[in-house]
Amino acid sequence: MPLERPSPSEPVVGIIGGTGPQGRGLGGRLATAGVPVVIGSREVRRAEAVAEQLTAASRTPLRGGENRAVARDADIAIIAVPWDGHAHTVQSLREELRGKVVVDCVNPLGFDKQGPYAIPVPEGSAAEQAQALLPESRVVGAFHHLSAARLADLSIATLDSDVLVLGDDRDATDIVQQLADRIPGLRGVYAGRLRNCRQVEALTANLIAINRRYRAHAGIRVTDI
Amino acid sequence: MPLERPSPSEPVVGIIGGTGPQGRGLGGRLATAGVPVVIGSREVRRAEAVAEQLTAASRTPLRGGENRAVARDADIAIIAVPWDGHAHTVQSLREELRGKVVVDCVNPLGFDKQGPYAIPVPEGSAAEQAQALLPESRVVGAFHHLSAARLADLSIATLDSDVLVLGDDRDATDIVQQLADRIPGLRGVYAGRLRNCRQVEALTANLIAINRRYRAHAGIRVTDI
Repeated sequence: MPLERPSPSEPVVGIIGGTGPQGRGLGGRLATAGVPVVIGSREVRRAEAVAEQLTAASRTPLRGGENRAVARDADIAIIAVPWDGHAHTVQSLREELRGKVVVDCVNPLGFDKQGPYAIPVPEGSAAEQAQALLPESRVVGAFHHLSAARLADLSIATLDSDVLVLGDDRDATDIVQQLADRIPGLRGVYAGRLRNCRQVEALTANLIAINRRYRAHAGIRVTDI
Repeated sequence: MPLERPSPSEPVVGIIGGTGPQGRGLGGRLATAGVPVVIGSREVRRAEAVAEQLTAASRTPLRGGENRAVARDADIAIIAVPWDGHAHTVQSLREELRGKVVVDCVNPLGFDKQGPYAIPVPEGSAAEQAQALLPESRVVGAFHHLSAARLADLSIATLDSDVLVLGDDRDATDIVQQLADRIPGLRGVYAGRLRNCRQVEALTANLIAINRRYRAHAGIRVTDI
């Protein structure tokens, strides 16, 4: 089967922290849908190795690179780093991300004997922290609730979840909704301003609790829209 | 059509603040489903008037009474008061609610020019506040996301929403899930411990934002369970 080459005029999605489960899963899905994707990592070699794996799995060419280079090349950057490294990574890419749509999908969660819980964030949410650190970028919160296991399993052709999209810039949330719509079975739903992103990130703790109780990979659908 | 009389052995649901939109809607739906319901209010007359209206609308007998008497008579109490009066009302019913399942469906929300937002609660959530004020009750968070307009419109025979049920007492959450399951179109889903109730309450702000954008009465479904 020949490689499908995306249109060169299409915006390039760069995934910062693209070698983790969430970034890798999103990268593979977006690439399969024909979106030009670049996988970022702190280590170039690791990024290139994951890009190569995803290229084979998705039958679509993905490139890999160091986070900074990926941020520079991207039209839309997805922040998919662990919460621990969130502030540091985001801040370090301020110049490269200037003027761009930055999609934050990080869930600030902790775990103890009783299971998952939301970690308080001084700025309110990971997305608001990113916006505070990137005042000249257009930050959008999205892709919080997708099961990394389901994203990665490309034998599941169609997912079953809405993507809640939050932001203060209407054009930016529209762009991210359209990006979510590209992945079969996902639907981008505008779900409010950034100040209401905290509970959307934290809801991932509830989905993990649901997964444990029901042995599932729970997702969210919004009814009546 | 004859009145359907519920089995006398069935637990009685008392709705504290049952004359507001949420309490009234839930009361009508539960009564229609055959659950014995008593509507509570600070004013007996108001409670009786609403109980009479709901009796006519649901073709099922509901009683009404002062909040304290309703709390005393109830096996399961649903707290459906406005957030403003939450702490005061809950605290005042401590004796009457001892040992009982107390279902908190209160959403601590504020509104300004930019729309709805979550109000911080010192205890974490309305449900955790209730549990702190009612240490001898079994507090469960549930029924946060139902549209009062849809609940009230009994011409809609079947709703379309999951009810996220949160609590630290397994028997209590089981009871509340079963209660949710009684209403056609609703499904009770265990969604974690009380410490994860904050984001479930706050998510109502996102649903209101969705309703405004899409002119809808949005609800939530959990997929893969």
